[in-house]
Amino acid sequence: MTRWLMLMSFVLAGVQPAVKKAIPAPAVPADAPSYTADGQMKFPADYREWVFLTSGLDMSYNPKATAATHSVFNNIFVNPSAYRVFVKTGTWPEGTMIMLEHRGAEGNHSINVRGLTQAQDVTGTEIHVKDSAHMKGGWAFYNFKDTGSAKLIERPAACYTCHEEHAAVDTTFVQFYPTLMDVAKAKGVLSAAYLKEIEAKTAPAEGGK
Amino acid sequence: MTRWLMLMSFVLAGVQPAVKKAIPAPAVPADAPSYTADGQMKFPADYREWVFLTSGLDMSYNPKATAATHSVFNNIFVNPSAYRVFVKTGTWPEGTMIMLEHRGAEGNHSINVRGLTQAQDVTGTEIHVKDSAHMKGGWAFYNFKDTGSAKLIERPAACYTCHEEHAAVDTTFVQFYPTLMDVAKAKGVLSAAYLKEIEAKTAPAEGGK
Repeated sequence: MTRWLMLMSFVLAGVQPAVKKAIPAPAVPADAPSYTADGQMKFPADYREWVFLTSGLDMSYNPKATAATHSVFNNIFVNPSAYRVFVKTGTWPEGTMIMLEHRGAEGNHSINVRGLTQAQDVTGTEIHVKDSAHMKGGWAFYNFKDTGSAKLIERPAACYTCHEEHAAVDTTFVQFYPTLMDVAKAKGVLSAAYLKEIEAKTAPAEGGK
Repeated sequence: MTRWLMLMSFVLAGVQPAVKKAIPAPAVPADAPSYTADGQMKFPADYREWVFLTSGLDMSYNPKATAATHSVFNNIFVNPSAYRVFVKTGTWPEGTMIMLEHRGAEGNHSINVRGLTQAQDVTGTEIHVKDSAHMKGGWAFYNFKDTGSAKLIERPAACYTCHEEHAAVDTTFVQFYPTLMDVAKAKGVLSAAYLKEIEAKTAPAEGGK
């Protein structure tokens, strides 16, 4: 009987690990950033299935910029595992990837006779990633020329300083992501610099005294 | 030993069904349409986590319509289970829900000085659903006044005839969904009416003979 109990324990022990193996708890999310052997970021082929944050049209942060000759939409997506953490906590976890897709705008397409719709041609893709293992300080930018891999944009570069100085939450432009702005307000994570900038922009002019 | 084998079989038989029970194959997708007892469609609270298809700005199908006084973006989302079937087959399964979200556009927000960004106020949500159990013929429209439930838009209504006459695939405006248009072309599922309309729109004028 003792031998039988030992054998049954062995059988059970042999079966249970197999069950655990079938549904493991992932240490690294399936949608985490991925790199080539020489440190380039691999293009995330499924980014269009990530969580959509917003679209903008012909945006520019430069008051002196000339008007666009051809209108362009930008669509913003975030990897789902990072989105879920942000919604819960108001902070971006390691491995967050925010994808900016530029896509041509067209008028008078099919039965649409006014306004603009999105064309089939993608004119650019850039990723803002939080990955301390690959970038001191955490956040880094990659500009993809195609759907292969992209080199890190080294500092100094305007994207880093602009995001650090003007972004609402942790160097990310949450002020343009309507559903996440509600989360950021609720969690109290808006940056001091952003709050000061908004206050200055919305304050009445002091002239006329 | 025979008794031991029988016991071991029992142990194994007892363990295996429990494993199957833990990960059942769902008969109805978790993102399927849901209705109240009196047949109203329940608002899908998590639609912003569905798959994004496109955004448009100030679109109109009516050549006589006057210009919008305030710009509006429309964002289109589809429930993930339906998206996966469409990508694989080029056809929409029962339970497909296509959500149209209207959202205010704003210029000069935060550091953006040109173009338009999406505001926090949602100004409307409508769903186009393929659900033969609730609508003879399959596709139906629901217009949500809030995040509660919405009554079916009964036929006749302009939305039905317009989608039936002009939509590229199965009464849905795939011609405005760039990534799905590639799928539709590859699968050869573009409607004859749509192909004829596009041909007429792009053909050179026959005047001057």
